[in-house]
Amino acid sequence: MRFNIFLIIFLITVSLSNSIQAQNDEDVEKVGDIFDNVLTQSSSYNWLHYLCKNIGHRIAGSPAGAAAVEYTRQMLDTMGCDKVWLQPVKVPYWTRGNIAECRIINSQIAGDIKLSACALGYSAATDIAGISAEVIEVKSVSELEKMSDDKVKGKIVFFNAPMDPTKVSTFSAYGEAGHQRTAGPRKAAEKGAVAALVRSLTLKADDIPHSGVTIFDEVQPIPALGLGIQSAERLSALLSKEKQLKVYIRLDCKKHKDQLTYNVIGEIKGSEFPDKIILIGGHIDSWDLGEGAHDDGAGCVQSMEVLHVFKRLGIKPRHTIRCVLFANEENGLKGGSTYADEAKNKGEKHVAAIESDGGGHTPRGFGMDAVPEILKDAYAKTQKFREILAPYGFYELVTGGSGADIGPLKNQNVVLFGYRPDSQRYFDFHHTENDVFESVHKRELELGAAGIASLVFLIDKYCF
Amino acid sequence: MRFNIFLIIFLITVSLSNSIQAQNDEDVEKVGDIFDNVLTQSSSYNWLHYLCKNIGHRIAGSPAGAAAVEYTRQMLDTMGCDKVWLQPVKVPYWTRGNIAECRIINSQIAGDIKLSACALGYSAATDIAGISAEVIEVKSVSELEKMSDDKVKGKIVFFNAPMDPTKVSTFSAYGEAGHQRTAGPRKAAEKGAVAALVRSLTLKADDIPHSGVTIFDEVQPIPALGLGIQSAERLSALLSKEKQLKVYIRLDCKKHKDQLTYNVIGEIKGSEFPDKIILIGGHIDSWDLGEGAHDDGAGCVQSMEVLHVFKRLGIKPRHTIRCVLFANEENGLKGGSTYADEAKNKGEKHVAAIESDGGGHTPRGFGMDAVPEILKDAYAKTQKFREILAPYGFYELVTGGSGADIGPLKNQNVVLFGYRPDSQRYFDFHHTENDVFESVHKRELELGAAGIASLVFLIDKYCF
Repeated sequence: MRFNIFLIIFLITVSLSNSIQAQNDEDVEKVGDIFDNVLTQSSSYNWLHYLCKNIGHRIAGSPAGAAAVEYTRQMLDTMGCDKVWLQPVKVPYWTRGNIAECRIINSQIAGDIKLSACALGYSAATDIAGISAEVIEVKSVSELEKMSDDKVKGKIVFFNAPMDPTKVSTFSAYGEAGHQRTAGPRKAAEKGAVAALVRSLTLKADDIPHSGVTIFDEVQPIPALGLGIQSAERLSALLSKEKQLKVYIRLDCKKHKDQLTYNVIGEIKGSEFPDKIILIGGHIDSWDLGEGAHDDGAGCVQSMEVLHVFKRLGIKPRHTIRCVLFANEENGLKGGSTYADEAKNKGEKHVAAIESDGGGHTPRGFGMDAVPEILKDAYAKTQKFREILAPYGFYELVTGGSGADIGPLKNQNVVLFGYRPDSQRYFDFHHTENDVFESVHKRELELGAAGIASLVFLIDKYCF
Repeated sequence: MRFNIFLIIFLITVSLSNSIQAQNDEDVEKVGDIFDNVLTQSSSYNWLHYLCKNIGHRIAGSPAGAAAVEYTRQMLDTMGCDKVWLQPVKVPYWTRGNIAECRIINSQIAGDIKLSACALGYSAATDIAGISAEVIEVKSVSELEKMSDDKVKGKIVFFNAPMDPTKVSTFSAYGEAGHQRTAGPRKAAEKGAVAALVRSLTLKADDIPHSGVTIFDEVQPIPALGLGIQSAERLSALLSKEKQLKVYIRLDCKKHKDQLTYNVIGEIKGSEFPDKIILIGGHIDSWDLGEGAHDDGAGCVQSMEVLHVFKRLGIKPRHTIRCVLFANEENGLKGGSTYADEAKNKGEKHVAAIESDGGGHTPRGFGMDAVPEILKDAYAKTQKFREILAPYGFYELVTGGSGADIGPLKNQNVVLFGYRPDSQRYFDFHHTENDVFESVHKRELELGAAGIASLVFLIDKYCF
């Protein structure tokens, strides 16, 4: 009798482990199919080409933004989604204008020097004659905060903290140094400065100025510019010798009234749980320099590719798979907040949301985030996916960070994922005229798309 | 008494595990120091700039090859190595010449069409008038082997197998499709073909021809050319409609007598085991197109950087750390074979050898190789390094493959490692005019150098 029980247990164990193995083999095969398919089609790369070359940069609320909304809607509409629609979003609207002049005008050592600069998002314009003032250099916002207002009043504040090159993830270095861009100009304005210059957020030693949002909230905006690294270094070197150095600035950027644009949404209905949604997305808006290729054309076309590869391979998901191209990540996050608000109002249930907004580079893995009550369990459930995804370069499946647009869903108990490509090159392009189609590598883009699709496939099958 | 024994065991265990933890913390810290240091210096990137821009491509035996030998010798000599020397190596010498003409001359559909082509290494020249002949397309060497000699005689054989885009490692795809380049022209010559055209080994859909070695052994060489992908596709498309298509070829490449060049060697003597060597290396020669930036300027400067960072940080290795820049990887492997032969003759003991010859891209990890008797143990010993290296993007520490130059050391019971950068972009540049300094990313290059230095540090401390 004991023998028989052991035999039965043994047989059950063998049969269970065979079945787990078969399951696993089946998953390995399906994920292989997804990668093979994506790597031999060119949908995402072709869509990105159109977005970059036929439409170009597309700040939310702009005519190009409308073209991008319509183009991606049409693409989702023709790939056989069950439903495609536009969700209206009111967005703030700011334009850069045509003038971004920035010069040192009174150097005894070097004479008149042009500095490579561009307006930061929400910068004020100067008047038509421009402004000129002396410059105070600081290495952090807190250094500025400690200064008396008298010392700052009437001056141009120059934030010159470099990104930390010893941080292996350049996103960590960006996170640290980024505070001077988002909060520095406001603090300078509060202290009576007439303008702010911010060292570009990059580790590349070139002279391309980087834009990006700066937040004035209730404070009256002042002119605020990103400075190319070489210009920042030169200004700093001269300032160390000539305290009375003056910089001249002229800008014609403008804040307009809010505009109407849209989140672009397409979905494949779930066969078992049509009311439970797995979301994938990027943001369709970009800064108004370059072509928004890495930021975030790449994330948009990768998200669209997930639906497309499901259709091409005839994968019928159990949950509804929904692709959302958010309207306004760069300067307001209105796409993400509108989406989350409406989801809550309609009682929609999202089980997971994955955002791709870290560029189109070669994959490293995914970050995860959720409210503490569900994060541990979600993390445990997804660890078994690692061995399936690792052969494709997706080694990381770690807690910490997801995406700005899906962030507002966190409090609706959604498990959030952020796609993590390799970060070394991202800040060579980010928010600059160099963020163009040619800077995206076809296979790296496709590996990302296939990895996101594979994660969706596995979540749909096993979680949550 | 039992209680006391348990207490003692407990205390020993705690103390041991504390000591292991402390050891581990110490290693984590030291590896962190290595990365911080390499990422904030620019030695390797500056050396690479000189190699690429002041010297340029440097096929073994060429005057530029001599300049590269002398430059790297001087750099090793001035960084404080204990010993720097040149090891003489006799190498075959072949030059490409100035003419690489390749045209379709009788298409009824398309007229006269220029094809983008370059001579493969060891190609024969044509006579001054060039040659023209009809073309047979094959998709593999074995397809050619099955053909009767009659069908091939007097023709140009066109090998047109694409690299497999579904292989995630492009090196695997290269390994498969590469056979048509290395062995195809010889087989064509044996069957009486007058020339061979080989589809370039790349996944990028451009029209840049890729060179690389083709091996004739005892067979009389024929003209053999790499064709750009678009040219190959066009030729193939026309051939499917016009069987009598003729191609005209003119080449003035030349095989010369053997030349003398050198393996460049520098070392830091080991404090405990000066007679036991840990080798790091790349190859100083390159193909005679582009600037040999990824292949293998990157591997050379990374290897030099290992010694330099040990010196900068004052790390005193237990074993001798030796940097070897091999003379002749591309067309003969004489650097590696000479080195291994002399090591054997002198009775030198190498415990490990690491080669970097996969490009300067962002890291993925290391491959390992050794004779079966020692591989399993070596693999087990190194697995504990993974958690230390993974935060820097070195996730892989797997068996399978090392490097061509260190390969001949395998039979001397040396544990071999091949540095594995991300492979997606490598064959965009490999053996082409595009393999230039600008295609190497500073931080990616430096992460590789720091990872190799860290592996050397850990091997020196714990193995073998």
